[in-house]
Amino acid sequence: MATPVTIYGPPVSTAVSRVLATLIEKDVPFQLIPIDLYKGEQKKPEYLKIQPFGQVPAFKDESITLFESRAICRYICDKYADKGNKSLYGTDILSKANIDQWVETDGQTFGPPSGVLLLDLFSSVPVDEALVKKNVDKLAKVLDIYEQKLGQTRFLAGDEFSFADLSHLPNGDYLVNSTDRYGYLFTSRKNVNRWWTEISNRESWKKVLEMRKNA
Amino acid sequence: MATPVTIYGPPVSTAVSRVLATLIEKDVPFQLIPIDLYKGEQKKPEYLKIQPFGQVPAFKDESITLFESRAICRYICDKYADKGNKSLYGTDILSKANIDQWVETDGQTFGPPSGVLLLDLFSSVPVDEALVKKNVDKLAKVLDIYEQKLGQTRFLAGDEFSFADLSHLPNGDYLVNSTDRYGYLFTSRKNVNRWWTEISNRESWKKVLEMRKNA
Repeated sequence: MATPVTIYGPPVSTAVSRVLATLIEKDVPFQLIPIDLYKGEQKKPEYLKIQPFGQVPAFKDESITLFESRAICRYICDKYADKGNKSLYGTDILSKANIDQWVETDGQTFGPPSGVLLLDLFSSVPVDEALVKKNVDKLAKVLDIYEQKLGQTRFLAGDEFSFADLSHLPNGDYLVNSTDRYGYLFTSRKNVNRWWTEISNRESWKKVLEMRKNA
Repeated sequence: MATPVTIYGPPVSTAVSRVLATLIEKDVPFQLIPIDLYKGEQKKPEYLKIQPFGQVPAFKDESITLFESRAICRYICDKYADKGNKSLYGTDILSKANIDQWVETDGQTFGPPSGVLLLDLFSSVPVDEALVKKNVDKLAKVLDIYEQKLGQTRFLAGDEFSFADLSHLPNGDYLVNSTDRYGYLFTSRKNVNRWWTEISNRESWKKVLEMRKNA
């Protein structure tokens, strides 16, 4: 089916996966153009017109082009408010703000230490051991707060699955499933483990993982 | 004047300043409760109920409490859409998304390296020299892209001042004005320098600096 929605980037990328999961939750048809990072396609002049920093993803819909995964997800939720999961980014200003504070927590507080551990898992250059240790400790402290919060509500922003939970899936999935080194940070915490099991079993996320396999 | 809008945190904090500048741009009356970080007021149980990570700012408006400065700013712009600077966060889905991608760029791309340099300026513990050097290089590369963009448009998200520009003021101000070490990163780039001069002279930002002096 012809669709104006195009996402550029490989599904193996955490930021690309965040957008894919959002598109699938919102039931928005899209085409994926798999930018090859090893061939440096993200640095080509045509691509830099959409994503000036040479990163993935980039995004197009009708007259707009966008970068930055969380901004793209917010746009998809706003533009396609009536499609698919209608409460993914809330249904009014209050519920949206409540979700957004946890999306920002993902980007500012959960993201940086989990990003260092992903680097440790996947980088071809070894990551300094002390730095890894420091970020394991940092992430553990963050997840202690999540543990408390998830003792009060089923999901981060309340009793409904939202963009706040979804935003954590890409980094979380690699930490839990691609190694036996860091999964315990999630599985050893009762409420975090319950939450993680529930959100990582969303049909939308399973489809993203399927897209990775077939990429 | 009695107002339901309360912000908790010292104006010296970059994240608190971001919210203050937004409130002033939007002409929203507020009261400021100056949390004393040296006394550990941000770790007190009452405060942790609003901000579970023990950071500043926290925010209250009628029935809602929030944390994470950029989420708070988005909420203020949405809730008080008709007040003050009406186009601060755009006036439709497209302009909002265009602004939001640069707010995310602030948080994800400009924020991390500039944050390390702020640590170097203000931390009582010395910051590793190689780490500082690495982040100066990183920030320089980011500002090269800003230089290009600001050669095409007057502000980051187009020809109007927006939340995208505002979001950069807190870190930028310390880098440019509290030392002679890092200001050249801004002043040596023609378009960045023009942009910086214009946005840092906004009345709203001057009022935030005034609040710092009087805090």
